[in-house]
Amino acid sequence: MSEQNSAFSQDSRAVRPLRIALFGFGTVASSVARILVETNPEGLELTHIYCRSLAKRRVDWVPQSVLWTDDAASVLTSPDVDVVVELAGGLDPAGGWVRAALEQGKSVVTANKKLISFQGVELERLAVSKGGHLKYGAAVAGGIPVIPALEQGLAGDAIERVEGILNGTCNFILSKMEEGADYAPVLAEAQAKGYAEADPTEDVGGFDARAKLSILMRLALRVAVNPEEIVPKAITALRAIDFSYARDLGCTIRQVARSERKDGRVAAAVGPVLVPLRSPMAWSRGTENMVIFSGQYGGNVVFSGHGAGGDPTAVAVVSDLLTLAHGSRRVKLPSEKAKIDDEFEVPHYIRFLVNDRPGIVSSITAALAKEEINIRAIVQKAGYPAQALPFVVTVEPCKTSSLRRALQSVRSMDCLLEEPLELQMME
Amino acid sequence: MSEQNSAFSQDSRAVRPLRIALFGFGTVASSVARILVETNPEGLELTHIYCRSLAKRRVDWVPQSVLWTDDAASVLTSPDVDVVVELAGGLDPAGGWVRAALEQGKSVVTANKKLISFQGVELERLAVSKGGHLKYGAAVAGGIPVIPALEQGLAGDAIERVEGILNGTCNFILSKMEEGADYAPVLAEAQAKGYAEADPTEDVGGFDARAKLSILMRLALRVAVNPEEIVPKAITALRAIDFSYARDLGCTIRQVARSERKDGRVAAAVGPVLVPLRSPMAWSRGTENMVIFSGQYGGNVVFSGHGAGGDPTAVAVVSDLLTLAHGSRRVKLPSEKAKIDDEFEVPHYIRFLVNDRPGIVSSITAALAKEEINIRAIVQKAGYPAQALPFVVTVEPCKTSSLRRALQSVRSMDCLLEEPLELQMME
Repeated sequence: MSEQNSAFSQDSRAVRPLRIALFGFGTVASSVARILVETNPEGLELTHIYCRSLAKRRVDWVPQSVLWTDDAASVLTSPDVDVVVELAGGLDPAGGWVRAALEQGKSVVTANKKLISFQGVELERLAVSKGGHLKYGAAVAGGIPVIPALEQGLAGDAIERVEGILNGTCNFILSKMEEGADYAPVLAEAQAKGYAEADPTEDVGGFDARAKLSILMRLALRVAVNPEEIVPKAITALRAIDFSYARDLGCTIRQVARSERKDGRVAAAVGPVLVPLRSPMAWSRGTENMVIFSGQYGGNVVFSGHGAGGDPTAVAVVSDLLTLAHGSRRVKLPSEKAKIDDEFEVPHYIRFLVNDRPGIVSSITAALAKEEINIRAIVQKAGYPAQALPFVVTVEPCKTSSLRRALQSVRSMDCLLEEPLELQMME
Repeated sequence: MSEQNSAFSQDSRAVRPLRIALFGFGTVASSVARILVETNPEGLELTHIYCRSLAKRRVDWVPQSVLWTDDAASVLTSPDVDVVVELAGGLDPAGGWVRAALEQGKSVVTANKKLISFQGVELERLAVSKGGHLKYGAAVAGGIPVIPALEQGLAGDAIERVEGILNGTCNFILSKMEEGADYAPVLAEAQAKGYAEADPTEDVGGFDARAKLSILMRLALRVAVNPEEIVPKAITALRAIDFSYARDLGCTIRQVARSERKDGRVAAAVGPVLVPLRSPMAWSRGTENMVIFSGQYGGNVVFSGHGAGGDPTAVAVVSDLLTLAHGSRRVKLPSEKAKIDDEFEVPHYIRFLVNDRPGIVSSITAALAKEEINIRAIVQKAGYPAQALPFVVTVEPCKTSSLRRALQSVRSMDCLLEEPLELQMME
C-alpha cells in the first residue's frame, strides 16, 4: 500500500482525505465534480481541475479551494495530488498523463477503455512497481459495476463465457430499427441526441465494444488480448427487412460482444447477432448496456443498466476513488496470452438480396451442402420485387469459417445485388 | 490491516496463504471445499473442517492435510486458523462461533443472513476492534454479487430505492402458479426438489426475504434496521384466480422485497406484488433472484442470477476469501437509525371472494370513496358461481394505510367469504 493512498482506511480514522485532480472537464468529469461536491464523501477531496479551455469550462459551483489550471505537467508532478482522474479519453495525450502520474507513484482512476484495452497490462505493472494503483471501473458498461464484480464477488468463479451489449449507441439504433425505423434516420436522431458522434465509426463499426470486450476478457476469462486480434463487424449492413425476418424467427438483432473459452481455445466476436426475444439480451433497449457472465460454478449472472452518460459513468469513477480511499485492493486476476479466433459453432442467419432468376436457391444450397452445412429454414416474404428480392436462409450450428467458405463460392453469382449478410444466432 | 490477514497482498508475493476453517459441511460448505480443491486459488488454503457428524460427512476428495474435527472450540482458538467460514446458518450456535472467532482477531466469512440481519452491525464493530474482518457477500442473493457491488462499484452513488426478488423458493412457486398451477401442489413439488423446507414458513411467510432486505437497506440506503420492524406478508393467500386477473392487467405476481427513501422517511415491505409483464421483475423465473438498485446518479442497475444453491453461494464465499487474501477492504458505508413504515403510495389490487348479492360493489366503492381512494377498474370474470364469486378492484396510487382503513370498514360484510386480498402494484 503506498503511503499516499493509505491516508484513510476502514480501521482507523481519516488522517487526510485523498487529494484528487480531474483531467478533463467534459460531461463525465463535471458529473464527478458535482457528485463530490453534493455528496461530500468521506476520504475524498477535489483539489485540482486541469482542462485546456479554462475560460470556457470553469463553473462557479466548484469550491473556491479547487485549483483550475491548463498546465498538465504542474498537476502531474504536484506533491499535493494523490490521485489523477483521467477523463479526456483516447490514447494521446491521456496515455502520457496516466503514465506520468503513475511514474510519480500517484494512483490513477480512468474511464478510458481504449487506453486500458491497449495498454492496461503495462500500465498496471507500472502502477504496482511505483506503489500506486490503477482503477478503471468506468471503462466498461459505465454505471453498471461489472469490473468491481469481476474483481470481487465473482473472483472465486471460473468464468467461461462473457456476452455483452457494450455500446449504447448501437443499442439505441438497433432497438429503434426493431420498431421499424431505417438505419440512416435513426443514426441522425442518435447524433442529434448526442448518443452518436459526427463520425460514428468507432461505435457502429464495433471498435468501442471491441475495446470493452478485450478488457472483460482479461478480467473474466483471464486472457491477455490485443483488441486488434478481434475483427468487429459493423451494424451498417443491417436493413429494416432483417428485423422483419428476425421477428419471424422469434428474434431481434443486437450488437453483441462475446467471448468464450472452449476446449482450450478462446473465441471472440463483436457485431450484430440474432438474439431470441425471450433472452435477456432482447430486454436491453435504448442506450442501456447488459453483460452476462457464465461461470463454471455460479452459472449465469446478468447485469443491466446505464452503460454511458455523465452521471452513471461518474458513479463508477467516484466508487473507484472511494475504494482507493478506504484501502481496498482488487483481487489479482492473472491473465495469459491465448490464441483468439472467431469460431463460434452456432446457427447462422444469411440474408441474400438478389435479382431473382431460376436456380439461385439451388446454387446456394449446393454451396452449403459442399461444406456440410445443414439448412434449417429458407424464408422468403411476399411483396418484394423480383429484381430486388430479399430472402433468408438459416442454417444449423456450423463454424463461421465453413459458412464463409460456402458464401465465398456463391459470391461471384451475378444475380447477387449485394454481399450476403451473415449473422450468428444466439440460442 | 491485521497481521494475520496481510499475509498476501497484490503488491508483494504471497508469504503464506490464508488458512481457512470451514464450519459446517452441508451443500454450500462442500461446494466451497470443492472449488478450493479444484481451482486452487492463490493465497487460500483449506486447513480445517469442523462438523458434528464427522463420520457421516467426511469425503475422500479433500486433501489429507485438512484436519477434520468435531471440536469447535479447538478450531476457534487455534493459532493455525486465519479465517473461519461459518456456513451452519441460524443464530445459535453459529453466532457464538462467529463471535468467538472475531474475539480471537480472526476474520469471518459467512452466508448467514439471519445472523447478519440481526447482529451484523455489532459483529462488524467487534471485528474492527479486534483487527479482523467480517465478510458476508453470500448472505444476500447467493451467487449474484450485489453486496460487493454496493461496497465497491455503487459506493459512489446515493441509492434511493432497493427492489428485489430475494427468495428463490417463493419465486419458484409463484412462477409456477403464473403458468396455472395451484399453491399446494407447487409447494409440494418445491419440497420434493429440495427448494422448500418441510416447514416452509421462513420462505413463504417472507421472513427469509425480510432478513436479506434489511441487510441491503443497511448497505444501500444506509439505514440501520431491526428486521422485525418489517412485517412481511405471506404468499399463501394467493389463488390461481389472482394470476388470471393479474394477467388481464398486464401483470404477474412476484414476492418482492423493497425499500425506499422518500421525503426523509424510509418505507419497507416484503410480500406478493403485482409486477408488469414488461418489467425486469417479471423476467425472473424459477429459483432465480433479481435485485434492482435505483441511484440518484446512476439510475437503475439490475442484477439477476442464481440466488441460492451450493455452487453459486460458494462462489460468493470463495470470492470473499480472495478479497481477504488480497488485502481488499470494503468501503465503509455508515448507516443511521431511521423510522421504518410500509407506506408506499402506489396503485393497489384488491381481490374479493363473495357470496354475491345486490349492493356489494356499492358498499365497497363507498368505503373507498370515504378514504378518498379513486377506483381505477372493477373487473369480474365470467364463469364463476354467484355463491363464491371472485372479483377485483384496482385503485389509483394511495397509501397502504388508507386502503387498510377502507377495507376494515367492509370486513364485517357477511357476504365476504374470506379476507379481501390487497396487493401493491408496481408501475
